[in-house]
Order: sequence, then C-alpha cells, then structure tokens
Amino acid sequence: MQKSRASAESDTQRIEAFSDGVFAIAITLLILEIRVPQLNSTEGTTNTLSLASALFVLWPSYFAYIFSFVVIGIFWVNHHYVFQLYERSDQVFKLFNLLFLMCISFLPFPTAVVARCITDAQQLQTVVVLYALVLFLSVLTWLLIWLYASRNHRLLNRNLDGRFIAYLTRMYILTSVLYFLALVLSLWNGIAGLVLCVGLTLLYTLPPKKPVYRSGA
Amino acid sequence: MQKSRASAESDTQRIEAFSDGVFAIAITLLILEIRVPQLNSTEGTTNTLSLASALFVLWPSYFAYIFSFVVIGIFWVNHHYVFQLYERSDQVFKLFNLLFLMCISFLPFPTAVVARCITDAQQLQTVVVLYALVLFLSVLTWLLIWLYASRNHRLLNRNLDGRFIAYLTRMYILTSVLYFLALVLSLWNGIAGLVLCVGLTLLYTLPPKKPVYRSGA
Amino acid sequence: MQKSRASAESDTQRIEAFSDGVFAIAITLLILEIRVPQLNSTEGTTNTLSLASALFVLWPSYFAYIFSFVVIGIFWVNHHYVFQLYERSDQVFKLFNLLFLMCISFLPFPTAVVARCITDAQQLQTVVVLYALVLFLSVLTWLLIWLYASRNHRLLNRNLDGRFIAYLTRMYILTSVLYFLALVLSLWNGIAGLVLCVGLTLLYTLPPKKPVYRSGA
Amino acid sequence: MQKSRASAESDTQRIEAFSDGVFAIAITLLILEIRVPQLNSTEGTTNTLSLASALFVLWPSYFAYIFSFVVIGIFWVNHHYVFQLYERSDQVFKLFNLLFLMCISFLPFPTAVVARCITDAQQLQTVVVLYALVLFLSVLTWLLIWLYASRNHRLLNRNLDGRFIAYLTRMYILTSVLYFLALVLSLWNGIAGLVLCVGLTLLYTLPPKKPVYRSGA
Repeated sequence: MQKSRASAESDTQRIEAFSDGVFAIAITLLILEIRVPQLNSTEGTTNTLSLASALFVLWPSYFAYIFSFVVIGIFWVNHHYVFQLYERSDQVFKLFNLLFLMCISFLPFPTAVVARCITDAQQLQTVVVLYALVLFLSVLTWLLIWLYASRNHRLLNRNLDGRFIAYLTRMYILTSVLYFLALVLSLWNGIAGLVLCVGLTLLYTLPPKKPVYRSGA
Repeated sequence: MQKSRASAESDTQRIEAFSDGVFAIAITLLILEIRVPQLNSTEGTTNTLSLASALFVLWPSYFAYIFSFVVIGIFWVNHHYVFQLYERSDQVFKLFNLLFLMCISFLPFPTAVVARCITDAQQLQTVVVLYALVLFLSVLTWLLIWLYASRNHRLLNRNLDGRFIAYLTRMYILTSVLYFLALVLSLWNGIAGLVLCVGLTLLYTLPPKKPVYRSGA
Repeated sequence: MQKSRASAESDTQRIEAFSDGVFAIAITLLILEIRVPQLNSTEGTTNTLSLASALFVLWPSYFAYIFSFVVIGIFWVNHHYVFQLYERSDQVFKLFNLLFLMCISFLPFPTAVVARCITDAQQLQTVVVLYALVLFLSVLTWLLIWLYASRNHRLLNRNLDGRFIAYLTRMYILTSVLYFLALVLSLWNGIAGLVLCVGLTLLYTLPPKKPVYRSGA
Repeated sequence: MQKSRASAESDTQRIEAFSDGVFAIAITLLILEIRVPQLNSTEGTTNTLSLASALFVLWPSYFAYIFSFVVIGIFWVNHHYVFQLYERSDQVFKLFNLLFLMCISFLPFPTAVVARCITDAQQLQTVVVLYALVLFLSVLTWLLIWLYASRNHRLLNRNLDGRFIAYLTRMYILTSVLYFLALVLSLWNGIAGLVLCVGLTLLYTLPPKKPVYRSGA
C-alpha cells in the first residue's frame, strides 16, 4: 500500500520536474529569436546603419522577449502552485499535461512573429490574433487538466476544501473566458486585443489564493 | 551493504533525471524548426503573400510539431513507466539508454524534414521512410534495453512477477515488429506508411498495464 | 504547521531547480552563437580562406563564449550560495527571481553581438555599452531580490546573524555601483569599460564569505 | 555540525544536477547542426537533387552527430561515476568544474565543423586537429578537477582507499597523455588522428573500476 503511494507521489514529482524542464527551456529559447543585426562588410551588403541604431530598431524583439518571458514565467508560477494540490496522476492527466506543455513550448514561435512583424501596420492584427490564440489554447488546456483532476477529488488531496476547489474552478473558467474575449477582440481590433493580452498577463502576476484544507485534516 | 544499495538507487535516478532532461530539451527544440515567414520589405524580396496566408502555408510545420511532440511525449511517459521497474544499473544499461536517447534527440531532424518537404508529392515517400526509420530505431533500442535489463531479473525489482515480465517482453517485441511494418509499408506507399505511424502513435497513448508483483513481496 | 513548512521548503527548492535549468540552458546556448565558417563550394561563394585561418578569424566568438560562460557560471555559483540563505518564498520573490533570470537568459544576445562586432573599431563602444548594461541590470535585479528577501529576515533563516546580513547588503550594493561605473565608463571609453567588466568578473571568482549564524541556534 | 555537513552534501548534488543539465543540453543541441536540405522551389534555387540523395549526402552530419553523442554520453557516465567519490565542494572545485563544462558545451561547434568540412580533403586535417584539441582540453580539465579534489582526500570520502585514488590518478593522467598523442598525431596526419580519437572513445565505453573503500569503514 505504502509502496504504491510513494510511487504515485514520485509520479507527480517526475511530471513536475519534466514540466519544469520544458518551462525552463522554452523561456530560455526565446532569446534565440533575437537576431544580431548584420553589419559585417564581409557579408557583401552595404549597410549604412550604425550598430546603435540597428540595436534600437530591434525594440519589437525586446518587447516580445520580455512579454513572453513574463507569460511563461507566470504560467510556471501557477503550474508550481496548482501541482502542490495534485497528489496522484494517471495516463489521461499526463496526456493533458503534455497538451498544455505543447502550447507553452509553442510560444517562442508567435513571439518570433511578434518580433518580426509587429511594426508592420498591415500585419499587426494577424500577429496579435496568432499570439492571443496560443494564449487561449494554453489556458484552455490548463482548464482541461484542472477539470479532469478536480472532479470528485480524482487526483487532489482528499482533504482539500470543496469550496476552495469550486473557487479555483470558477477562476480557471473565468480565465479561459477572458482570453477568449482577448482573441475575439483582436479579430476586431489588433491594438485592443494586444492591450487586453498585456493587461491580463499583468493581472496574473497577482499571487494566487492559499489552498484551504478541511479542518480536522 | 546499504551504502552500495543506496548508491545503486541514486544511480537509476540520475539516469532517469538525465533522460528526462534530454526528453524535455528534444521536445522543446521542435519549435525551432518552425521558421517565421520572411515578409520584411527590408529583406529585399517582394513577397505579395499576406502574413495570414503565410502562416496558413506553414501547416506542415504545425503538423510535424504536434506529431513529434506527441511521439516524444509518449516515449517519455513510457520511459517513466518502465524505469519504475529498473532498480539497478550497469555500464551496458547506461550505454543502451544512451543509444535510445540518441534516437529520441535525433527526432527534431526528421520533424524538420517533414515540415519542409511533406507537401512535395515527389518527396513525400522519402520523408515518411526517414521518419519511420527513426521511429523504428527508437523502439528497437527500447527493446534492447528491456531485453538486457529483464534477463533473469538482471536490473529489475526481484519481486516483479515473471509472467508480467514475459507480457512486457511480448508487447515490446510486438511494438518493434509493428514499427518495422510501418517502415516497410512506407517503402511501398508513403501515405499508407504515414497513416500507420500516426495510428500506432495514437494507439500508444493508451495507458500501460500496472506492474504485477509476486504475492508475499 | 509542519506541512506548510515542508511545502515552503520545497518551494525554494523548486525555484532553485528552475533557476538552475535556466542557468544551464543559457550557458549551453552560448555555443550556438559561434557559426561554422562557410567554405562549401556548393554554396556558390568563392572563398579563398583556408578553414584554419577562418577558424582563427573567429577569435572574438571564442572570447565572447568564454567570457559569457564565466559570467553566467559565477552568477550560478552565487545564486547557489545565496539560496542556501533563503528559507521561504512568496509571489514577489518569485517575480523578482524571474526578472533576474530574464537578464541571465538575455546574455546570449549581447554575447553574439560581441562575437560579431567587437573587431569593428567604430562599433566597439556600442558593443561594450550593451554588454555592460545587461550586466548592470543583472546585478541590479540580484540586489532587488536580496533587499526584498532580507528585510526583517522576511525570507531568510531566522538565525542568520544580523551583521552578516548587513555585510551582504553592503557587498551587493557595492557590486551594483561597480557595474554602474563600468557602464558609465564604457559610455566614455569602450576599451576601458571592457577592461573593467572583465576585471570585475575575475574578481567575483573569489569565494563568498561563509554565512554566520547566531550562536545558540 | 550536521547542518553544515548536510549543506555540503546538497552542494555536490546541486553541482551534479547543474552539470547534468549542461550535459543533457549539449548532447541534445547536437541535432541542431544537421540542417534540412533546401529543396523548396519557392526558395528560388533550382536543385535537381532528389531528397533521398540529399539526405545521403548528409552522412558526415550523421557521423558527427553519433560520434559527439557518444563522446558527451561517455563523459556524462564518467562524471556520474567520479561524483559519487566527491563528498564536499569548494569555490576552486566549482570553478574547475565550470572549466570542464565549458569544454563539453563547446563540443557542438567542432561537431558542426566536422559535419560541414570533413569531406573536403584539404580541410580534413584542420577539422580533426580542432576536434582533438577540444577533446584534449576536456580530459585535461577533468584531470585538473581530480588532482585538486583528490589531494590529501581534500573533497573525497575519507574512507576511500589510497591505492584506489592512486589508480584513478594514473588512469586520468594516462587519458590526458593519450588524447595529447591523438592531437599531435592529427597535426601529422588527419586520418590517423581521427582513427585514434574514435578508438579512444570506444575504449572509454568500458566500465570504470568499482571504488574501493578502506576495510572497517
């Protein structure tokens, strides 16, 4: 009995460690999307820009880097938070977590698209729709994991308070709805969608509520 | 006595942690193969495609990303599963595990080939043969590890049921045979080989059987 | 009570593990900035350089690689050192640590700029200013974490000696001031700024002082 | 007393975990050096090669990938082995280990040079000299760590047998001498140096001797 319990615990720990690896790599790969400006005369192109102005022109890359770093960082903080509530795991849980990680490790791509195309007024909207779509899929798979794991305390600590679980469920559904609104908004107006995405991300830097356990536990 | 046992245990744990690292990196590197479409007018090329259509044209990259992510993810889940059965390690085991990881971390390459060439009808078959070959080598090295480790309970928990070991041996041989068939099929018809590869991958999302220990253990 | 304490401890451990991941990836990604010289005749460019001389010409890349490797390595050693003092964590601490990691994982970019542009006398100063700026932001966010965590022993071991905390505070403020001077110096003279940056880095290879705990603890 | 001991132990464990991260990333990054052949007609180049022959032409990339994977893998196995002997750490040890990791994570560069230039008979020797040099620096820094850590049992388990330590010292010095010979040989004849490098690597797949502890320990 104890054996299987210990193995179940190490189970969520190994999932957590693997997820941490993916988070850490995805967040660090973002820097590869900032390309060094080509100024070398040996490259055959005559470029009259100075390096300083070439570095300033890269500001969309810096913005995209910082924004995506914060986004992935906050997802990591919350993943960390919610995994203290999961005590067991099963195959479906692992696959849902993989789906979620698939969205997270996809983020360097829309980040690169933002970096290259956001200054092009004609393409701005497409850029924002792409980014908002990936964010929406991330929070949607997150919700999926939670709904699956929390149903009848399936994978949660059995002493976790029912009202607290209901509270988290409401919060995660609300998050999905808000990012869906950001996606819809960006289909109507790129700038507005971008502002909402940035605003929501800043909002989620707020600390999550402490878990509540049933008294007598 | 206890010392050497503890060190043996930490031994498989460090192999597991290292393997997890390779899995996490290989799965996250996949995104680097999706290249941002070049639309910048400063690049000197006149490209009349809008960003939106350029992003749609990248669908083979998204397909390759999702497929390889699922493939590596499932290998990770099963590696996780089978390593709870390994209790000791030795040099041969470590080298076989390295061979297996060599196949896993090779996967971003055939993934990139799929992404670039799968829409070219003339090249489709070559693409699928390459991918099926790497998948076959992955399951073959997997089988090699298992046969070596399970022979006379060499590296397994001594209480693991003999019939359960025989069951896993049959399953892993069957897997190798199935992926070999996928490889042969792709040599005959690219599309058919591709369908079998995708089908097998979906099949392996099913949960593996729980380990059976001898009663009285 | 014990539960929440254990969870707080695993909390700083998971932050440490995640940070280690980011350090390890950032330090290993540096190599990707050294590009293989293009000598293939199939590439269409006639290049009369031999491979040996082409490899010698890459010396700024080797210098940048070694310097940034040492910089990130020393930050890792010190992060390791200071995290043995942190016993608890909270949301603000996690966000500050993310800000710091954002600077560390940004380092491959100025490294690549150094590698490509440092031999260009006209660009040398810009290159050094960029690198010094990122170093300064790194030590500044480091100081921020420390000031937040050490205030009234907020996240520190309660037995840590007050004078020792004051000593570290002085050291970290001094570090920020020194790197700020390096930044200002590089705005005035590139070479001088570079020499100061390298000198400071070598200085920080010295071992940090052992933590002092209150007697009777 | 116990506290400082526990912290010293976790010290070598964190160095080990960080090193594992660098090993895992360096070994997985190798795949990025294999570039997908450009066959897309949209790229503007008319290339009459079929994909299959283009994939065959990449054989130096596969060779370089497999060889470097085995090299880094064997270094990892041996790092793993020798770190079970280290019980304490200090600043010098950490810096020496960083120097060693600097060599390991440099390996993707000579690997890429091998992949691109080894088929060019004129450049073969330069390629092998570069690779042999990096291998030699790796085993030299390895020896440095060992000599520093083993001197008067500085960082080793105090019960480790003196003759066993002397045996390892002889082995590691011999290794450095052998790789130095490979370097010198490659300066005289590229092919001969290459054969020796490959031979040595295969030799080091042999399992290391079990550590011997003093009786009565």
